[in-house]
Amino acid sequence: MTKFSQAQSELTALLGDRLTLADGVRDVHGSDESWQPAVAPEAVAFPETTAEVAEIVKICSARGVPMIPYGIGSAVEGGIVATRGGLCIDLSGMHEIRAIHPEDLDAVVDAGVTHVALNERLEGSQLFFSVDPGAAATIGGMAATRASGSNAFRYGTMRENVLGLEVVLADGRVIHTSRRARKSAAGYDLTRLFVGSEGTLGIITAVTVRLHRVPEALSSAVCPFPDVAAAVKTVIQTIQAGIPLARMELLDEAALQAVNAYSGLDYAPAPTLFLEFQGTEQGVVEQSQRVARIAAEQGGTDFQWATDAAQRNKLWQARHDAYYAIIESRPGSRSVTTDVCVPISRLAECIAETRRDLQECSLPCPMLGHVGDGNFHVLFLVDPNRLEELAEAEHFNSRMVQRALDMEGTCSGEHGIGLGKREFLQQEHGAAWDVMRSIKATLDPQNVMNPGKVFAD
Amino acid sequence: MTKFSQAQSELTALLGDRLTLADGVRDVHGSDESWQPAVAPEAVAFPETTAEVAEIVKICSARGVPMIPYGIGSAVEGGIVATRGGLCIDLSGMHEIRAIHPEDLDAVVDAGVTHVALNERLEGSQLFFSVDPGAAATIGGMAATRASGSNAFRYGTMRENVLGLEVVLADGRVIHTSRRARKSAAGYDLTRLFVGSEGTLGIITAVTVRLHRVPEALSSAVCPFPDVAAAVKTVIQTIQAGIPLARMELLDEAALQAVNAYSGLDYAPAPTLFLEFQGTEQGVVEQSQRVARIAAEQGGTDFQWATDAAQRNKLWQARHDAYYAIIESRPGSRSVTTDVCVPISRLAECIAETRRDLQECSLPCPMLGHVGDGNFHVLFLVDPNRLEELAEAEHFNSRMVQRALDMEGTCSGEHGIGLGKREFLQQEHGAAWDVMRSIKATLDPQNVMNPGKVFAD
Repeated sequence: MTKFSQAQSELTALLGDRLTLADGVRDVHGSDESWQPAVAPEAVAFPETTAEVAEIVKICSARGVPMIPYGIGSAVEGGIVATRGGLCIDLSGMHEIRAIHPEDLDAVVDAGVTHVALNERLEGSQLFFSVDPGAAATIGGMAATRASGSNAFRYGTMRENVLGLEVVLADGRVIHTSRRARKSAAGYDLTRLFVGSEGTLGIITAVTVRLHRVPEALSSAVCPFPDVAAAVKTVIQTIQAGIPLARMELLDEAALQAVNAYSGLDYAPAPTLFLEFQGTEQGVVEQSQRVARIAAEQGGTDFQWATDAAQRNKLWQARHDAYYAIIESRPGSRSVTTDVCVPISRLAECIAETRRDLQECSLPCPMLGHVGDGNFHVLFLVDPNRLEELAEAEHFNSRMVQRALDMEGTCSGEHGIGLGKREFLQQEHGAAWDVMRSIKATLDPQNVMNPGKVFAD
Repeated sequence: MTKFSQAQSELTALLGDRLTLADGVRDVHGSDESWQPAVAPEAVAFPETTAEVAEIVKICSARGVPMIPYGIGSAVEGGIVATRGGLCIDLSGMHEIRAIHPEDLDAVVDAGVTHVALNERLEGSQLFFSVDPGAAATIGGMAATRASGSNAFRYGTMRENVLGLEVVLADGRVIHTSRRARKSAAGYDLTRLFVGSEGTLGIITAVTVRLHRVPEALSSAVCPFPDVAAAVKTVIQTIQAGIPLARMELLDEAALQAVNAYSGLDYAPAPTLFLEFQGTEQGVVEQSQRVARIAAEQGGTDFQWATDAAQRNKLWQARHDAYYAIIESRPGSRSVTTDVCVPISRLAECIAETRRDLQECSLPCPMLGHVGDGNFHVLFLVDPNRLEELAEAEHFNSRMVQRALDMEGTCSGEHGIGLGKREFLQQEHGAAWDVMRSIKATLDPQNVMNPGKVFAD
């Protein structure tokens, strides 16, 4: 009898048919967007309230059943794969927007509310929620993985945009990590301890997020460059000049070709910056003229404005869909997606060395990145049935992470650790990794909260 | 034989005359700017390197000697008072600016470097470090207390401006909490766990801080209002309108009179906003015209620009010195300084109720605040020898904190917990307070790191 089967009757009494052992449902919950082999949980629970989550956690903790919180499964490091079996807790049934406080520029949402749903609700209010990791992820999942995306350069990641959390701890206690005040010097910053903890310290059931005001004016531009180095130099000089761009995204030739094919566009197949300017009407004109001059000095002479809203939306939708576009460029493939982030001063060097290294790689490996943050990805497109391709991707991925660590960078800019980066985490943090493990052991002494993720046992 | 005396010979062998038991030195290190009764440590150590701090910590931990890290003693909640005896570790001898990275907009400094010293070094570079809590505090101390100040509205507190820390743990291990990349999703956010931990989890020996670019143009304004409510409404409407002010500071009549007297100024004795605009030349003109219109609608018709640099510096120096000005307004007094922060939507109500309540207070109690953040202070000026005055101040302080907590606020916006707010911390956080204590017990099982602070035993 497994630990889960001991808990099953109590869970059924609590949830009725919102606990399921159906194969189809379990299978869907056994894999994310990563290449990590799928492992289905033993069952899936669909709670609708924080109190239900707390009850589920108490039942599972009493039996030692592993618990895996689940948003929509869009992450890419295997964070929800049920390698130890146990119960998947799907929070999509918690989708209430609890409150919007326009004066305070914040909103309180259930963990299962997606950033898309929150922004739909905010339409017409002149406010928006800025973090957009690409997929239509839940805000709870985004908090758990410290999600980021192209808006982070200006507005920050989930680290900066979460004001407080409601969390169910391993013993079923419900805590609130912070009041709604904009700042506080009262005690340890539990909010940020749980942001990025990937379900290993507790289950996030609600999130208080910052909202931002929709800027008066927006404009976008696309600019191809003779090579990646020229594009990166443009980014660095733009930051140095203090020009407050909203987004600075780089796609290499291969990524751009995939985007062209997927989105029906005809950009020149060259390393290309996608830029967004925000501010006053005058401000965005001024900014873009300055950036156009900087780009031209680096050979980026074909600086094209996207002036009207339709054109601008098309451009950003194309960038937004780039991940899916790249995967579709090799039918049937999955992506081993790297995710390193280095100080911006090392970015050109890091990218150049990576590109030299990848000349030896036999796999398609387009590159794109949130270069304003020093964060970039390579998508190694592998046939998941060919182990030698996975091995080759892992080989180059490892070298890339090592290169980033050697340049004072991090093994993950925004995708998290999950199953895929556990060894790198230890290498990156050294003695601080032991501190992280001691905190895990304190808050989850039985190791039932998403066990095996972030830390290998 | 005290625990310290058992450690003394080893500490002397390590530090020579940089360990002192001289009364004068001990006394200076036994009190901060708070009203908390001074208690001198048994000795004061002056390490010069991280390795020395690690050795000191190992020696003290082995003997169970309490350790109190010390910057310049400018905090106001008794965080460095040696209530349990032990060794004060004065980090002012660690004052090297280890590196400035202009391309990455960051700097790495020893804990004993003051924000003033860092900004002096940055002169001419077009970069600055934004956090300024008023006193010429050390950056290590500012990180330990999650310091803030008038620039926080635009640039954030130490929470947002620390990229990474070097910390000596209770067992003498040295950890680095983060790489220098601008963002990371790699593991638990230890940086922000230690920011604001007030020396209770470890001793911060170095800090990597964000730098910001000096804005192209700066301008300032002063505007008196018929009452505090009108000033606060102006602040809220300005934020709502999305006008990106750099600073929004409120002084009430009493605070303004103290500032006038101290700084030789002649502002009208009324509730007054001090404002700062930053941006492009055009931008600051546009911003200030918009704010002037908003202020006029609230009766703030005497909106005065400070156009030239000398006038602007005089204005901000006066605001900067307000704390000292207020204390000097009652010779021989100390201040019991409240520090609450509420959601901005509750600020007008919170201030109004506080002012009604304070009509019954017999002490001078000027008010000032970083109102853009919802954060304000009342300085109760007490004769430290008159216990009944302290009791009265504490009475009104408690009521003010309670009021803020009832309005979803925090018991400390920027001053921290120290000795003065330990009970409020528990009330504010409930079950989350137990989580904080369990983290403390994990990282400092002997309770030797600044014991008795943040948590009462």
